[in-house]
Amino acid sequence: MKSVRAFAPGTVANLGPGFDVLGLAVTGVGDAVIAERGSDGEIRIRSSGHPEIPSEAERNSAGIAAARVRERAGKADVGFTLRVEKGLPLSGGQGGSAASAVAAAVAVNELLGSPFGKDELLPPCLEAETAVAGRHADNVAAALFGGVVLVRSLEPLDVVRLPFPRDLRIVLVQPRQRLRTEDARARLPRTVDLGIAVAQAAGVGALVAALAARDYDLLRRSVDDRIAEPARAPLLPGFAEAKSAALSAGALGCSISGSGPSSFAFAADEDSARRIGEAMVAAYRARGIEASARTGAIDGKGARIDGVEE
Amino acid sequence: MKSVRAFAPGTVANLGPGFDVLGLAVTGVGDAVIAERGSDGEIRIRSSGHPEIPSEAERNSAGIAAARVRERAGKADVGFTLRVEKGLPLSGGQGGSAASAVAAAVAVNELLGSPFGKDELLPPCLEAETAVAGRHADNVAAALFGGVVLVRSLEPLDVVRLPFPRDLRIVLVQPRQRLRTEDARARLPRTVDLGIAVAQAAGVGALVAALAARDYDLLRRSVDDRIAEPARAPLLPGFAEAKSAALSAGALGCSISGSGPSSFAFAADEDSARRIGEAMVAAYRARGIEASARTGAIDGKGARIDGVEE
Repeated sequence: MKSVRAFAPGTVANLGPGFDVLGLAVTGVGDAVIAERGSDGEIRIRSSGHPEIPSEAERNSAGIAAARVRERAGKADVGFTLRVEKGLPLSGGQGGSAASAVAAAVAVNELLGSPFGKDELLPPCLEAETAVAGRHADNVAAALFGGVVLVRSLEPLDVVRLPFPRDLRIVLVQPRQRLRTEDARARLPRTVDLGIAVAQAAGVGALVAALAARDYDLLRRSVDDRIAEPARAPLLPGFAEAKSAALSAGALGCSISGSGPSSFAFAADEDSARRIGEAMVAAYRARGIEASARTGAIDGKGARIDGVEE
Repeated sequence: MKSVRAFAPGTVANLGPGFDVLGLAVTGVGDAVIAERGSDGEIRIRSSGHPEIPSEAERNSAGIAAARVRERAGKADVGFTLRVEKGLPLSGGQGGSAASAVAAAVAVNELLGSPFGKDELLPPCLEAETAVAGRHADNVAAALFGGVVLVRSLEPLDVVRLPFPRDLRIVLVQPRQRLRTEDARARLPRTVDLGIAVAQAAGVGALVAALAARDYDLLRRSVDDRIAEPARAPLLPGFAEAKSAALSAGALGCSISGSGPSSFAFAADEDSARRIGEAMVAAYRARGIEASARTGAIDGKGARIDGVEE
């Protein structure tokens, strides 16, 4: 085949109390990578006009993932050109670096004759994510597998795919703010009180139970992050107001998406999701911050090939 | 009615990573309370020959629970005599104080004409447990409701009843050791590293998912306590060896039951449970510590009235 296009959805990581643990994929927007074999052994990035995305393959999550996949396949001498189509915002907290890495890994794997299944593509994607955004697997695993994932352990890498309600809606709101992942990480405490750790663990367990049982009352009570959100909310003007507006509008929980600045909310249906999105956008605007909302379901498929040119 | 007998099963609290969060009830042994109305307004305890159990009602978990239930019912002037039949070991880590409190609450509620459902009996039971064993609800909730419970929050009190596999077996091993709850609590760290908190939260989520999906491989990987077990295991000679023996014998996870000294293991079936129990007892004995094992399923019923004399 001449070229392969792979798509990976956007993701919400650090889901509620699930800091570094829980992630989910959202239908709709994502990143795509069109990969073709190069004439030499180089990996080259052709980006779609984002000047801030590094064009050096070794600094770009798509390039790193592609390099790791070809190494793993024992084909380190095969070169690729990767055209990265960014559907997701940069530094948005919607899993953009992870989606680019995952789409590149899936596309390059296909070009190499599909030596690997998705499970085997996870480690190279995690390496790419680690290089550009810190060592956490909740975005890459959700983008790759789809659905809701729980990262039980990074060492050894152990990702659990969780049951989830098909009708649950996700509201993603992107305020016109910048918050670099490094800055957001720098705000995290190094230690937490035992009581906080216990509450956070209980929240993760409750959220898993709520998704499995489709218990939306419990879901709303479980989206309660005692660690990352309190540390980061002060960096995100308008978030507190948007969260309050979301809950008043009937959201089944609201928190920061990834390390921000995007925020997310759960909703019981599409109408409610739209209302919640409008209320959140209005709350940001009332603070003088432009914002936009989108709604989607949980993307149960994850990354997929969506075009092959022979 | 003249007297009521209520039974409450033994429980494993601090289940794996679920310190203060996860508990389950075990079929078989438990505590029973036979309550009858007194001739005056006093609550009197008649214990079954354990000199270490306080006979003052206000220092005995059954007496405290009974007092709280009658207050809540607006009948603080009604007295009771409570005969406590201890099936569970004292300071064993098998939820003895909780089972006595729960059995007393259920019996007294019945004698008062059942003004309360189980949900409403939980707060008085928690108050009783708090007075004698520290503020944690994982034993009382499991003893009261049966099954597997997740304490999402103490304030407000929010307990989630989790799905669980009916065929899972629990091995409970009681070494002839004493470890007071207060001493075990004193060993706990006041703060934990962020990475430990994240791992513990992931473990709780994974354990909930494993029980819901009957995924025994995941269950075994999830019984991994990074907070309480490392702090307490040094106080419990023989535990490390018993755990190692349990895992070698095929246990689906092994940890300390409650705050010890009992240890527990999960097993896939009764034969395996018996083998694991024997291996654990042998490991304690090899360290010069007498021990005994019992096996059971998860008790899905919880506390119940099992005798009424009119």
